[in-house]
Amino acid sequence: MKTYLDCLPCFMRQALWAGRIATDDEKKIKELLDHVGCMLQDIPMDSTPPQTGDLIYRKIREITGVFDPYKKIKQANIKDALKLYPELKQIVNKSDNRLLTAIRIAIAGNIIDFGVNKTFNLEEDIRKILKQDFAIFHFQQFVEQLERAQSILYLGDNAGESVFDKILIGELGKPVTYVVRETPVINDVTFSDAVDSGLDQVAKIISSGSSAPGTILNLCNDEFIRQFEKADMIISKGQGNYEGLSAVDRPVFFLLKAKCEVIAKHLNVKEDDIVLKISDKISQRSIQ
Amino acid sequence: MKTYLDCLPCFMRQALWAGRIATDDEKKIKELLDHVGCMLQDIPMDSTPPQTGDLIYRKIREITGVFDPYKKIKQANIKDALKLYPELKQIVNKSDNRLLTAIRIAIAGNIIDFGVNKTFNLEEDIRKILKQDFAIFHFQQFVEQLERAQSILYLGDNAGESVFDKILIGELGKPVTYVVRETPVINDVTFSDAVDSGLDQVAKIISSGSSAPGTILNLCNDEFIRQFEKADMIISKGQGNYEGLSAVDRPVFFLLKAKCEVIAKHLNVKEDDIVLKISDKISQRSIQ
Repeated sequence: MKTYLDCLPCFMRQALWAGRIATDDEKKIKELLDHVGCMLQDIPMDSTPPQTGDLIYRKIREITGVFDPYKKIKQANIKDALKLYPELKQIVNKSDNRLLTAIRIAIAGNIIDFGVNKTFNLEEDIRKILKQDFAIFHFQQFVEQLERAQSILYLGDNAGESVFDKILIGELGKPVTYVVRETPVINDVTFSDAVDSGLDQVAKIISSGSSAPGTILNLCNDEFIRQFEKADMIISKGQGNYEGLSAVDRPVFFLLKAKCEVIAKHLNVKEDDIVLKISDKISQRSIQ
Repeated sequence: MKTYLDCLPCFMRQALWAGRIATDDEKKIKELLDHVGCMLQDIPMDSTPPQTGDLIYRKIREITGVFDPYKKIKQANIKDALKLYPELKQIVNKSDNRLLTAIRIAIAGNIIDFGVNKTFNLEEDIRKILKQDFAIFHFQQFVEQLERAQSILYLGDNAGESVFDKILIGELGKPVTYVVRETPVINDVTFSDAVDSGLDQVAKIISSGSSAPGTILNLCNDEFIRQFEKADMIISKGQGNYEGLSAVDRPVFFLLKAKCEVIAKHLNVKEDDIVLKISDKISQRSIQ
């Protein structure tokens, strides 16, 4: 997905939020905003938003000297999600369709996102998403692909959400490789966050090699690219991964909640809609 | 009022909105955002937000070549407000306190503001504001000052809102000078907008001499400054005028709805609260 004009003010807003989480020093935050404001002119509009996110968060690290501003927030989110884990597992156990319920739970976890929203009510939003209609619902294709797949590549998004991913991974019944960011960026899940979320118990964890808050293939390392190219099913969580991969010709299933107008428009859904979507190129090929 | 860090992303957002109203050419809008993004580093944080607004809207005129992007919107808003005028007048006629009701109506008109909000429901918001509690309510001081005043300087804000101002001016019972912007900026009221609103029937109309979307004294012309310095009562409408005048030592009464978090914090009220506030310096002096 390309960068839209609406993304530009949003980059500034994100820089302000993240700057405030990294430091109380208003002068440093102003310096950060000055830099980000001037960086915007160098952003090619055909680059994806997480590429710019990567540049912004590098600048945050550089100016504030804080390597992982969201560390405490991530730890708290993982802790809160782990407390909910037994209840979430019970919801799956009691459901008529375990896989679909686990998918809904994995999407519900996607509300834990400080890149887009500052505040959320986790338990309330879970209840809502468990009943919410999907705006795009390629569940049948998901089930068919899952049956055929030898193994699954699962692209993580946020720390905390990662605990919800564990629920879905437990229902897939296939070997799963869980992909994390190489470097802390916003509250995105890193290797240690994934381990803290208990994902090492259900999946092999690898890094994408990238510090972008989304999967940008040309920023990823060779190991990830190899896995991505050979995978017979890829599950991609959240907006950042969708933004980077929306146009790829691989069997990707995007699980996300549309949290901004730009993404909603790109997906032809409404803001706050939930989506289970197969990648367009694979979908078009199966129709032909 | 100074510029806060939160104002910086908002300047970008405002530039995007205004750019889209001025032109459909995405490249020109991108050029505008590039310029505004880079301008931010030169903004002194102790300048008031309308000073930056002035620079941004100059840039919009320069890049798009459109002198008054909001012209049609302003004309439509004035037309809509004029349709409501007889009904508003009836509301005042039927009320127990004509002056207070007219003040409420004048504040209700302040929701017509494309600088802060893109959308509003005029009739619904009027009904709400007619019943809404004031978060700051210096009505007694307003009445006392009005009784003593020989004449009143009334600082207009938006076109359309200007029709609502006519209702309040009709209840003041003193000679009124109505101040408009020199140059079109956002949807702020200019001389011709004021005439179209019928204000020439109830007030003398003068220009502030400034193209800023707010009253910044050092950007105003000599005639306005003279009137401002000798006025024994000043009524200031809206956020932009408040931002420019919040610290002045003149008998200013601010009538506004707090439409953003920054203003709300500065006034120590909540977003969407309505305010009738005497300037702090005059208020402090009367307490001493």
